[in-house]
Amino acid sequence: MRKVAVVGIGSTKYGKSDKTCVEMFAEAGMDAMHDANTTPKDVEALYLGNVLGDYEEDSMNIAPFCAAEIGLKNVPATKFETACSSATAAFRDAYTAIAAGLADIVMAGGTERALLMGTALATKTFAMGTETRYEQKTGITFPGVFGMMANAYSKKYNIPMDKLKELMAMVAVKNHHNGAMNPKAHLGKEITLEKALNAPMIADPLNLYSCCPFSDGASACILATEDVAKKLTDTPIWVAGTGMGSAGPLYMQKDITKVIAREAAAQMAYKQAKLEPKDIDLCELHDCFTIAEIAATEGLGFFKIGEGWKGVEEGETSLDGRIPVNTSGGLKSKGHPIGATGVGQVYEIVTQLRGEAGPRQVDGAEIGYIDTLGGDLAAVVNIILRR
Amino acid sequence: MRKVAVVGIGSTKYGKSDKTCVEMFAEAGMDAMHDANTTPKDVEALYLGNVLGDYEEDSMNIAPFCAAEIGLKNVPATKFETACSSATAAFRDAYTAIAAGLADIVMAGGTERALLMGTALATKTFAMGTETRYEQKTGITFPGVFGMMANAYSKKYNIPMDKLKELMAMVAVKNHHNGAMNPKAHLGKEITLEKALNAPMIADPLNLYSCCPFSDGASACILATEDVAKKLTDTPIWVAGTGMGSAGPLYMQKDITKVIAREAAAQMAYKQAKLEPKDIDLCELHDCFTIAEIAATEGLGFFKIGEGWKGVEEGETSLDGRIPVNTSGGLKSKGHPIGATGVGQVYEIVTQLRGEAGPRQVDGAEIGYIDTLGGDLAAVVNIILRR
Repeated sequence: MRKVAVVGIGSTKYGKSDKTCVEMFAEAGMDAMHDANTTPKDVEALYLGNVLGDYEEDSMNIAPFCAAEIGLKNVPATKFETACSSATAAFRDAYTAIAAGLADIVMAGGTERALLMGTALATKTFAMGTETRYEQKTGITFPGVFGMMANAYSKKYNIPMDKLKELMAMVAVKNHHNGAMNPKAHLGKEITLEKALNAPMIADPLNLYSCCPFSDGASACILATEDVAKKLTDTPIWVAGTGMGSAGPLYMQKDITKVIAREAAAQMAYKQAKLEPKDIDLCELHDCFTIAEIAATEGLGFFKIGEGWKGVEEGETSLDGRIPVNTSGGLKSKGHPIGATGVGQVYEIVTQLRGEAGPRQVDGAEIGYIDTLGGDLAAVVNIILRR
Repeated sequence: MRKVAVVGIGSTKYGKSDKTCVEMFAEAGMDAMHDANTTPKDVEALYLGNVLGDYEEDSMNIAPFCAAEIGLKNVPATKFETACSSATAAFRDAYTAIAAGLADIVMAGGTERALLMGTALATKTFAMGTETRYEQKTGITFPGVFGMMANAYSKKYNIPMDKLKELMAMVAVKNHHNGAMNPKAHLGKEITLEKALNAPMIADPLNLYSCCPFSDGASACILATEDVAKKLTDTPIWVAGTGMGSAGPLYMQKDITKVIAREAAAQMAYKQAKLEPKDIDLCELHDCFTIAEIAATEGLGFFKIGEGWKGVEEGETSLDGRIPVNTSGGLKSKGHPIGATGVGQVYEIVTQLRGEAGPRQVDGAEIGYIDTLGGDLAAVVNIILRR
């Protein structure tokens, strides 16, 4: 397989936008091409994440229109849909195409207009990521899935619920602290522990500040083969490994405090990269709910199973900690434009590995990890990047 | 790039089904694994086409559940969406993964429950494949797009409309003739030219028999690298080349009698396969409407531009003609379960190249072409298979 690097990145600010998905993507895509010193005629394919374009704006075949809007000429343009991990899945197939020799320069990205729908329709349509025959019929939505995870985690590891609530609130405070230093963040403001603890209840024990927002936004990046990458930039960021895993419906899973799709994805990514958890300098991971961050830090091997909560309590996942997590602010503060989120995480890790993250820069960051979860624990995509 | 072969195929009958998308896919997927002499533990990833699962059965993240249902253990499971060409796009990325060396055995397929929706919802949701900002607002649906194509074709090539209507009816009669010999076909019955000519009008000049049906159905295939393929089967069918192209909204296209996304896809596929149109023995192509078949036979280079109609008039696209087209019955007679259609076309070409097509067998078929169109001429995926 050929070596592949990320040579350009672009992103809209996440938050509320009056633009369409195509228009937002155009902003991110043009920025990525500019950043990569490429022009539309150089880019040989588009790999795009977009999940609910059909509900958001009656648009189901959006990839060709995104390609045309930024001047890509009749190139392969494919839309990926693995719920919240769609853009990361798109990135992985973009990487594969270059690794295989099918193309030398391609674009991966995502775009989503999730705020537009409003909370009611967004909650209903997001719930379509769960299993249809049995689970949806119980009325479960995603806050419910992760509320169950928090309850199971508290019981299994014997952590009193009041203590777990405080730990989850600390995750929110940390991510908002990081997001306040990120000009692209949707909710880029500090919050207090008190505010996080006393927010309105959503799905016990998850309250409003345990949940990430729905966001509008788009992100894009340019990938290139080794020869091309070295010509385009002095700071190529190499794809060291990728992994992807899946799982069946929740009723087939024995223990929802562990995400078995993630275990499969991480094992694949570490093996390909010939790296171990201790080699990772920082990580962007899927904190759709604060309990999800705690579980993910265990699943990715940064902490022992059942001890992820120590990461936030002891400050190990803070900016100056052993393994800084969600330096961008994460989904919680940076925002969650579903089909764009994964490449938004790539945007942050590339920014950090280039040393361009300003006040939230992790000193000496050389290897970064990206983790995106799709659906009710059903899909996970992981990517390892290195300087 | 490593050589890749199709080593197993499976498909439900197309038509009306009482099963869910997951259940239909399980039937096709298990058949494909059995045909390939593989078991679930051998299959390393799933690449799946599914377009309207969210509208059909509130299911938007279906690939992991399809994988779990047939026993694939936590493997990468990705859903592709490029409208009607979704399964073909899935096949192309499945091929790429093996060519790159990322996996040795993977499954590609698709599943769709389009009949379930009924004509009104299906027409509305299919129309979401068109461009949102300007085109949809005109009220256009797909019969309208291809009705315009037929009108433009008649005018541009100076073919009187009565003559073109007869030629289009001859396409329908030919494809139903083929489909009547296909036990998997949705509308597997002969029709007369008179019946085809006198059907109710849908979008002038297209009548009911100019249009393919909506179908329920699922198809699957197993792809493997050269070493593995030779161990699994005596009749590997090799992937000689693939191509994919896109185009912007219709208002950006100068001439809708030509599908520029197809020109890009075909150029890429022929180049990779080091083949020319004259080398192709038979073709499954996207006859969503009868005029679309005529245009596609030109775009793929089997006939000169503006002369595709001669193919059906002179019998060159018939089973015993120079370049048999849609020996399965095509979308018109075999049926069109949107997200499954592309791999259904692969199923037919593999069956033919193995010499297992029974009464509709093309003698001595060695090289077959697959062409699938997605959306309002916006996406085309092509695959060339050889014995």
